[in-house]
Amino acid sequence: MSRPRLYIQEVAPRDGLQNEARFVETQDKIRFIDALSACGYAKIEATSFTSPKAIPALRDAEIVMHEIARRPGVVYTALVPNVRGAERALSCGVDEVNLVMSVSETHNRANLRMSREESFAQLSDIVGAVRASGSAVAVNVSLSTVFGCPMEGDIDRYEVFELMDRFAQRGVDGITLCDTTGMAYPVQVGEIAAQARSLFPGLTLTLHFHNTRGMALANTLAALDAGVDRFDASLGGIGGCPYAPGASGNVCTEELVHMLELQGYDTGVNLAGILAVAETLPGLIGHDVPSQILKAGTRERRHPAPCA
Amino acid sequence: MSRPRLYIQEVAPRDGLQNEARFVETQDKIRFIDALSACGYAKIEATSFTSPKAIPALRDAEIVMHEIARRPGVVYTALVPNVRGAERALSCGVDEVNLVMSVSETHNRANLRMSREESFAQLSDIVGAVRASGSAVAVNVSLSTVFGCPMEGDIDRYEVFELMDRFAQRGVDGITLCDTTGMAYPVQVGEIAAQARSLFPGLTLTLHFHNTRGMALANTLAALDAGVDRFDASLGGIGGCPYAPGASGNVCTEELVHMLELQGYDTGVNLAGILAVAETLPGLIGHDVPSQILKAGTRERRHPAPCA
Repeated sequence: MSRPRLYIQEVAPRDGLQNEARFVETQDKIRFIDALSACGYAKIEATSFTSPKAIPALRDAEIVMHEIARRPGVVYTALVPNVRGAERALSCGVDEVNLVMSVSETHNRANLRMSREESFAQLSDIVGAVRASGSAVAVNVSLSTVFGCPMEGDIDRYEVFELMDRFAQRGVDGITLCDTTGMAYPVQVGEIAAQARSLFPGLTLTLHFHNTRGMALANTLAALDAGVDRFDASLGGIGGCPYAPGASGNVCTEELVHMLELQGYDTGVNLAGILAVAETLPGLIGHDVPSQILKAGTRERRHPAPCA
Repeated sequence: MSRPRLYIQEVAPRDGLQNEARFVETQDKIRFIDALSACGYAKIEATSFTSPKAIPALRDAEIVMHEIARRPGVVYTALVPNVRGAERALSCGVDEVNLVMSVSETHNRANLRMSREESFAQLSDIVGAVRASGSAVAVNVSLSTVFGCPMEGDIDRYEVFELMDRFAQRGVDGITLCDTTGMAYPVQVGEIAAQARSLFPGLTLTLHFHNTRGMALANTLAALDAGVDRFDASLGGIGGCPYAPGASGNVCTEELVHMLELQGYDTGVNLAGILAVAETLPGLIGHDVPSQILKAGTRERRHPAPCA
């Protein structure tokens, strides 16, 4: 029996590195992304074409995009906040631009300093600019706080679907439903994912979980049950804007892939390969990472000595 | 619609504290257990009647069992390794004795320094002693490494069921299937739990997960789907014999209850109550605990400030 195919999208180079206090040297970033490219990901979010003042950690976006070794079959995406960023990204030959806004008005204003309507207009302009360029570059929109806003609480899911509908009408290719601060729980994930798939069969749907409250892999099971086949994850579990000191952010790629392969899925990702790359992370960013598997090893690992 | 009832069993006072390097003062343990008793648990594993030399951290088992305020409706259980321990436990009026052996020969020898047959004989003697005492004390057997042994790898599940059958014939009341080092994964959990329930409908079945590789809550979902309604957990995620430095052990009670209540179950447990007790843990044991929720708060928590 052939294993069902899933698509894993690595966000560590952008979502993971963007909030690091220490600047990761450009050539180290390129080596990091090149190492990831060999591991079988469907997509890698390589960088962000934001203002260097806004996100100094990723001020080397052009060099990174130009100098990484692009591997056939891997979609290289980059976050883009506005038309200027899109032009920069297009000039570097990205395969996809990833746009971000929040479904929570409060979160959108706090995080992006504009209303949702202003964000929608700005992102629509980006879609227009990409389409006008005549390029075949894909457009994905990542919607934040879909499963709850840390300031507003639960979000009416019809606001999520309405926004998806408006972006679908603008011609975007994919939507990512993001659990920005780890408020999603499995029943909710199953319902929202199933409805999103049913309402928008033409959109490529990605789920993006955080492990803030330990539920990232449980939520993944619920999304799989709802037919989702595409997941964001961050190597080592780095990044993901934890709201509380010491809290976890993004789901850890190696823990996600480890579980999915045990569950009988074909993730395309070489687990040993990403574990080897994950081991370089503490050296790259200068601190420990949340990954459990990096400490304990996979379930295949044999330990000689028991607990006393 | 009434919410399905689940039964949560707190193991922190025994499984959590037994490997702590710093001795937790007896009166602090008693206050800890009394605080837990007010929170709605079905069962609390209060201590271990082992040799004080083997587990000095729990050398105050008698005083703890005598001085805690026993709350009606809560089953107070204690780990018991041999007939001498059972006699001590019975003299303290425990509601249940909890016996432990491994389904892996290698793990049993390494951890308990005897063969599985020797362990079975010793535990059988305990069952005999409890029954001969004429008390109504229940007997539970916790089987280690059911979902994999860190030394042997996968365990033939029919060895698990054979051992369950032999204990059932000896008249034990309950069996706990333990994922001692976090090797369980959801498909496997679902299969083993469903078979165990179907083969032994007369045994009270508990599942005991570790979060060593991030899958504890995902495994819980799979066990629920298989009809399991009883789970061990450890406040703060403390204890649980992590095999690797820094690795997580026992599933964290507050993360388990948080998810289960969101999923629509009635756990009986007061989440705010256990969070308040969990906040005292770092002071009690002198170090940080693995709990994510203790850092991030529940999903109800509202945060004023977003990520920059």
